[in-house]
Amino acid sequence: MQKPPLNVVILAAGKGTRMYSDLPKVLHPLAGRPLLNHVLDTARNVDANKVCVVYGFGGNMVPDTIADQSIAWALQAEQNGTGHAMQQALPHLDVDATALMLLGDVPLIEESTCREVIQQAENGNLVVLTMNKTDPKGYGRIVRNADGNITSIVEHKDATEHQRTIREVNTGIMAAPVERLKKWLQQLRNDNQQGEYYLTDIIGMAVMEGLPVTSVQVKHEHEAMGINSKAELALAERIFQRRQADALLAKGVTLADPSRIDIRGSINCGRDVFIDINCLFEGDVELSDGVTIGPNCIIKNSCIASGTTIQANSVMEEARIGENTRIGPFARIRPGTVIENQAHVGNFVEVKNSRIGEGSKVNHLSYIGDSDVGCDVNVGAGTITCNYDGVNKHRTVIRDRAFIGSDSQLVAPVEIGEGATIAAGSTITKNAPAGELTLSRGKQVTISGWRRPEKKK
Amino acid sequence: MQKPPLNVVILAAGKGTRMYSDLPKVLHPLAGRPLLNHVLDTARNVDANKVCVVYGFGGNMVPDTIADQSIAWALQAEQNGTGHAMQQALPHLDVDATALMLLGDVPLIEESTCREVIQQAENGNLVVLTMNKTDPKGYGRIVRNADGNITSIVEHKDATEHQRTIREVNTGIMAAPVERLKKWLQQLRNDNQQGEYYLTDIIGMAVMEGLPVTSVQVKHEHEAMGINSKAELALAERIFQRRQADALLAKGVTLADPSRIDIRGSINCGRDVFIDINCLFEGDVELSDGVTIGPNCIIKNSCIASGTTIQANSVMEEARIGENTRIGPFARIRPGTVIENQAHVGNFVEVKNSRIGEGSKVNHLSYIGDSDVGCDVNVGAGTITCNYDGVNKHRTVIRDRAFIGSDSQLVAPVEIGEGATIAAGSTITKNAPAGELTLSRGKQVTISGWRRPEKKK
Amino acid sequence: MQKPPLNVVILAAGKGTRMYSDLPKVLHPLAGRPLLNHVLDTARNVDANKVCVVYGFGGNMVPDTIADQSIAWALQAEQNGTGHAMQQALPHLDVDATALMLLGDVPLIEESTCREVIQQAENGNLVVLTMNKTDPKGYGRIVRNADGNITSIVEHKDATEHQRTIREVNTGIMAAPVERLKKWLQQLRNDNQQGEYYLTDIIGMAVMEGLPVTSVQVKHEHEAMGINSKAELALAERIFQRRQADALLAKGVTLADPSRIDIRGSINCGRDVFIDINCLFEGDVELSDGVTIGPNCIIKNSCIASGTTIQANSVMEEARIGENTRIGPFARIRPGTVIENQAHVGNFVEVKNSRIGEGSKVNHLSYIGDSDVGCDVNVGAGTITCNYDGVNKHRTVIRDRAFIGSDSQLVAPVEIGEGATIAAGSTITKNAPAGELTLSRGKQVTISGWRRPEKKK
Repeated sequence: MQKPPLNVVILAAGKGTRMYSDLPKVLHPLAGRPLLNHVLDTARNVDANKVCVVYGFGGNMVPDTIADQSIAWALQAEQNGTGHAMQQALPHLDVDATALMLLGDVPLIEESTCREVIQQAENGNLVVLTMNKTDPKGYGRIVRNADGNITSIVEHKDATEHQRTIREVNTGIMAAPVERLKKWLQQLRNDNQQGEYYLTDIIGMAVMEGLPVTSVQVKHEHEAMGINSKAELALAERIFQRRQADALLAKGVTLADPSRIDIRGSINCGRDVFIDINCLFEGDVELSDGVTIGPNCIIKNSCIASGTTIQANSVMEEARIGENTRIGPFARIRPGTVIENQAHVGNFVEVKNSRIGEGSKVNHLSYIGDSDVGCDVNVGAGTITCNYDGVNKHRTVIRDRAFIGSDSQLVAPVEIGEGATIAAGSTITKNAPAGELTLSRGKQVTISGWRRPEKKK
Repeated sequence: MQKPPLNVVILAAGKGTRMYSDLPKVLHPLAGRPLLNHVLDTARNVDANKVCVVYGFGGNMVPDTIADQSIAWALQAEQNGTGHAMQQALPHLDVDATALMLLGDVPLIEESTCREVIQQAENGNLVVLTMNKTDPKGYGRIVRNADGNITSIVEHKDATEHQRTIREVNTGIMAAPVERLKKWLQQLRNDNQQGEYYLTDIIGMAVMEGLPVTSVQVKHEHEAMGINSKAELALAERIFQRRQADALLAKGVTLADPSRIDIRGSINCGRDVFIDINCLFEGDVELSDGVTIGPNCIIKNSCIASGTTIQANSVMEEARIGENTRIGPFARIRPGTVIENQAHVGNFVEVKNSRIGEGSKVNHLSYIGDSDVGCDVNVGAGTITCNYDGVNKHRTVIRDRAFIGSDSQLVAPVEIGEGATIAAGSTITKNAPAGELTLSRGKQVTISGWRRPEKKK
Repeated sequence: MQKPPLNVVILAAGKGTRMYSDLPKVLHPLAGRPLLNHVLDTARNVDANKVCVVYGFGGNMVPDTIADQSIAWALQAEQNGTGHAMQQALPHLDVDATALMLLGDVPLIEESTCREVIQQAENGNLVVLTMNKTDPKGYGRIVRNADGNITSIVEHKDATEHQRTIREVNTGIMAAPVERLKKWLQQLRNDNQQGEYYLTDIIGMAVMEGLPVTSVQVKHEHEAMGINSKAELALAERIFQRRQADALLAKGVTLADPSRIDIRGSINCGRDVFIDINCLFEGDVELSDGVTIGPNCIIKNSCIASGTTIQANSVMEEARIGENTRIGPFARIRPGTVIENQAHVGNFVEVKNSRIGEGSKVNHLSYIGDSDVGCDVNVGAGTITCNYDGVNKHRTVIRDRAFIGSDSQLVAPVEIGEGATIAAGSTITKNAPAGELTLSRGKQVTISGWRRPEKKK
């Protein structure tokens, strides 16, 4: 028998009042990406052939931010309960499909758990994802009969004293065949205290119909953790980061402290990679074999080749770093930078939109912007490429084996010839010929009898 | 019936031998302020009309450091026990008041707990603050009769085998009407092994008199934690910092890691504020709506307006930062700095006692000290304001829309006129006229046939 | 009776497949040093008169890296079990000695525990170090008879259902008189499923002989933790670091966060030392009385005298820092640097292989390399010592009380005389006489009518 297709509905209409934010709740970032994106990832990873997101608070802010054409967006204009939210999704669902209902603010749900839920629903069941809470207060309790079958979910406030001792609770995540779901959702009524349509009422309907209501239990309580406050968001962040750190360790990466690494995106590591304390990675980062990342580094969307060491306190963004280079400490590598093999970039050096050739060195207190630096070039301390004339940016070209004396300014557009030497402290406004010494310098004079200023009273 | 006034006595005479320090114990900092200050805060927050601190070790170091005229200081010249310490405070107490006795080295006590203690004492009771310890070893046990009433506190070493199984212990914090306290304190005797006057002996006196001895129990064990070692100080520091982090989260601030933020002072945050990992705040800090603080920033006594981003690894002290500015990474903003709206201060830039006008940019490797920089000014990389002649500091004035070429030195006192341009590498010692190009530069020459130095053997 | 000599055998032949590394397992660093070095330390600290290391995987990489002549190295060419490994060590052992068998990948074993094991073995027993595991799965169970005497160790896979409920397990660490050990090892057989020689089989032999098999239990489970994966390595790292932090606290050092300090080597602290968050120490570091280390500092092989403050984000290596100096924030102090008393080194300053004299100041954006700076010298912002001519390094000498104007370059070899003044922006290529003003500067001119470049379309 062929498996039915999978439709995933993600409820993402809530405001999140306790977030105290202008941002809709599902757009708050976890590991640098909106909560909703994490749930969308899960939906895709369990092979949904259709994903429908029910949005509401913040209007188009949610679809505009996520900006994903493949999503079927369903607007829930008024927040009339979870059942009402599901009703908005109905028109998008395939009648022969299995529907998995996820929550946009429950980002840590694991794929393996979802797969178990889906599998049971594919057998025609209504499936409820449950968890055991030490303190179940406030949660809907899973009520079972003597045979252990689920008969209903009772909200905390409606529960009897006895029911309140039940510690198995509803997570809000469910799955069922779309066909049945459709029927049940149409029967939902809002004649309760809140005047809302409750999705959980479908349990009773299934029981009435004699349809099996089965359950899957989460492996870890945090899988079903809803994010309703910044405290919960911070907790989820740390759980998520720890998961990522554990995944790196499992692949053989050495971490100085797994609770002091933050990955906001993806990181791909070769063999024998070492990451020191308190590092932060953003976007897509690749670290090849034998790369060492020093303490307190921040690396974003960069690719670092094998054997390279990024020393402490370096900040790098959109760069490509060669093999066996040494960067930092206190280096700032900005977008568009390529550092070739065996090159060195040292402390208090900023490189932007430039190429530093193989074996070249920019070791101290320099600004290299919009430049092409050849191989085996030595750029002295305090060198500045003057790439900006106030309105336009120009390029500086430094050919192979040039030697730039300290504290020189290279006023772009300008070219320093192959093997040229620039004397310290020169302002170079015209091309410097290859192989020669070029300088601009006032004569050194001593003014005899000059007296230092005196302290003003 | 009117509530009696509240007198708070804080016992702060101890040396703290296990701190291995020359500083009296109560002066060791928790979150940047002496332990005693935290207890003083609590005393004020529970509306003490008089606070008396009993000091001793370190002599005047404690009153001199705290330097608070409103405190009644009582010297305990010799350390003859807690009862003796209270006796020194007696002359300062109001006979119609309720006395709450706090400990200078128990800084985490919560106000709500104190209020409960006070309230019971206002009813004429002797009130003992107690806690349940999993391992009560070393603590004075709370002995109760069959009715559950407290009959005595027995020190660990004097306790019977049976009494040692009691897990409810004395925290050392008490309250009672001053009138009764006075009578009891006068009756204390030191005919025990240590030859000390024990404050806890007043329990027995109250019981003898038939006065109710009641108790309040701490909500968290750490409320009553005494700081006797650097290990305990470090533990208290982390608990205190976590409390502050939780308070920020509860107000809607987003924290990347609540266990990696340190606040030594007060921090006031607007809506949608994000604070990244490993930040440290000192003194009074204000972060307006939408402010983002990058990783590893250190911010002291500063005020940051809405929409501004402080990028990674920036250090700021006593500064006022405008709206939608961008500071850092690696910026050092020193006291007396004002950065106006939309201005940028970039990497390896130090600004001291200066104003950077609206929309101006100081993006790279510069030192701006004692300067007034107008609006829309561009300060090139490597610019130095030479504000110090060896004995005096002078001001640099840069008017609106000036362009300062890279690696220029502006030798103060000096003024760069409106819209003036300074060529790269210039040393400007005289005022530069508005609208014109000013420079000081040696002619660029190439020395043909010059040969590079050779490697010395 | 004289105590028998102690021989320690360390089994260190394993590959550590789950480390996913080219490095043999025992060479992976814990707190900056190979795992094996930690076990070697323990061996020495319990007064081994001989240490034999059994190596195998990685060939000579292990002995070459450890490079310790005093170790007797025994090659286990094939990995045929722990018994086989011990057999390789036998020729090195003294027949009258007690043998303690440690594991190269169990680095956290405590000396006091080893001493207990040794003491029992010195009485002629075979001693097994055991631990209680909540989840003993996979471990060899300690089987005892009704009298509580050990009768055998049963591997998990060979254990009966009942034996599997035993939670006391073998740690792999043992001790016995060499004489007996020799006999047993010669009797080992490999007629088991794995075809390996198991060291634990000697238990049965001892029981058969009626020799007492006694045990010592670890105080903390992590003492016996084997490092088989990067996750375990990271866990051991944090436990080890926390132990070191606790040891510092116990000595009276103030730590802002004991879980955010990393010590990879030794640190020796005086009285009233404060170490702020997120610091990292490598090699041998000495901090004298009253030293303050700011947040995020990295200090390696350096010695800091009393009263000195190292401000935030400073990186220091192989330096000697005087009393009451102030370094940082953002200072980079490189090897060979000596900073004398009361000197200041400020932000974005790099100092290498130089002496900065008493009371001198290098406060901003400078590079001081291969220099001798006298007392009370003021080095202005942006000063560069040009120590490198492309092939050779030369020294710069700055005499007492000299004043170096901002953004000057001192082209070495060069000497600035006592009390000399260098004007801002000068390139100094020849010695500057004492007491005089020396400069090299182009004349400041204004070019009237010059027009700024226009934006290119």
